[in-house]
Amino acid sequence: MAGDMRLIPVTGLPAVQPGDDLAELVLAHLSEPVHDGDVFVIAQKIVSRAENRLRFLPDVQPSARALALAPEAQKDARLVEVILADSTEVLRLRQGVFIVEQRNGFVCANAGVDRSNVPPGNGQMVALLPVDADASADRFVEGVLRHTQRTVGAIVNDSHGRAWREGSVGVAIGVSGLPALKDERGRHDLYGYELQTSIIGWADEVASAASLLMGQSDQGVPVVLIRGLERPAGPNGSFRDLLRPKQKDLFR
Amino acid sequence: MAGDMRLIPVTGLPAVQPGDDLAELVLAHLSEPVHDGDVFVIAQKIVSRAENRLRFLPDVQPSARALALAPEAQKDARLVEVILADSTEVLRLRQGVFIVEQRNGFVCANAGVDRSNVPPGNGQMVALLPVDADASADRFVEGVLRHTQRTVGAIVNDSHGRAWREGSVGVAIGVSGLPALKDERGRHDLYGYELQTSIIGWADEVASAASLLMGQSDQGVPVVLIRGLERPAGPNGSFRDLLRPKQKDLFR
Repeated sequence: MAGDMRLIPVTGLPAVQPGDDLAELVLAHLSEPVHDGDVFVIAQKIVSRAENRLRFLPDVQPSARALALAPEAQKDARLVEVILADSTEVLRLRQGVFIVEQRNGFVCANAGVDRSNVPPGNGQMVALLPVDADASADRFVEGVLRHTQRTVGAIVNDSHGRAWREGSVGVAIGVSGLPALKDERGRHDLYGYELQTSIIGWADEVASAASLLMGQSDQGVPVVLIRGLERPAGPNGSFRDLLRPKQKDLFR
Repeated sequence: MAGDMRLIPVTGLPAVQPGDDLAELVLAHLSEPVHDGDVFVIAQKIVSRAENRLRFLPDVQPSARALALAPEAQKDARLVEVILADSTEVLRLRQGVFIVEQRNGFVCANAGVDRSNVPPGNGQMVALLPVDADASADRFVEGVLRHTQRTVGAIVNDSHGRAWREGSVGVAIGVSGLPALKDERGRHDLYGYELQTSIIGWADEVASAASLLMGQSDQGVPVVLIRGLERPAGPNGSFRDLLRPKQKDLFR
């Protein structure tokens, strides 16, 4: 039977700089020791910054396509160029809403490119999503193991919009040491019937839970430690497990 | 600055029967006293059962439309009839995947009709979504106030699939005493730029967080008490705030 689950905000981190070791930074700001089985949820914005996924708009030369799409996107053509360069497909573009498939397969607005929370440059610096946030999460988990001999899990989260529902919610864009999905197929209810909702987007639920403490601004909380989270059965997963293959997607 | 958030599973409830007072039942099974500001997340399945939202399939006469759709839905035509009767529109139907707009505006599989976790009838009894789960949540909040003089919030949650991502996640289908959305428009980051992701599907994130403790089966946890959740500014909301108006939905 499940026990309590506790979400602990990690606060007081300095502004993250390119090259920073996030595990080291976070461990230095924990209010209590790490336990085996703890899960860290790390906001994409600090991962992107630590990994120097930054573009300075004055250095960007917009393509003809970026120039053509910029008015409907209601964005600077150089920003549109940065978004297109990190995308494989434009799914929808209407009155400033610019939904793409980002290189890693995420369907999201603006390829996750964010103008806020990026240091100096007078709004001319933007941050891309990490190249591979599973690897970012792996590095974090390995860093914690190296420094504390504790085995933890890590999820990198971001906020994405949904097709039919208002508001964005936290989703997992990187997973390490944990399954991404919880598979309940074959489990039965109290009356012996097989469960209908049988595959759970578990890492997304973890990402959303942590988002509740994070807020969006830098005055917010870039990392949340979760203790008492029951790990689903099954092997470790990837953000890719959470992406619906295009041919199975009925809403493209 | 945010403090810890704690999610406490409420266990040991008996199988809920039509007419049961959920607030009374839950209060009798809490391991600690209720605080002002606590938030209860209640699984849809026990709300539907308490409100007698049950249909006995042998009593259902399938329409011609239900008979026509049943093969592609890969479902009993009487179950298809129950789903259609609680829906306003069929959005997608392909090889057993049956996505509708349910009467309250939820875009979900099978109008949320669930065959599992419903008592007797040899699999012939199915449960519909509550008629108005905001009202269900209101009754719960009022019941807690009446019995304990504490002011709490409540969310009724269910698991819905997503367009582009695998796995279902907890979403709010009823809200009481809380906003449904968290509006960060006009807030600025550390560097003075206005935040981009500015409307958060807050009640959905709460619903997902609680889902992590619930599991799907009746041996799971039908109610979760959340303590230390920071209430967003703004007036109380409704599940309707989380529904994207059809004309704004680019993915129908």
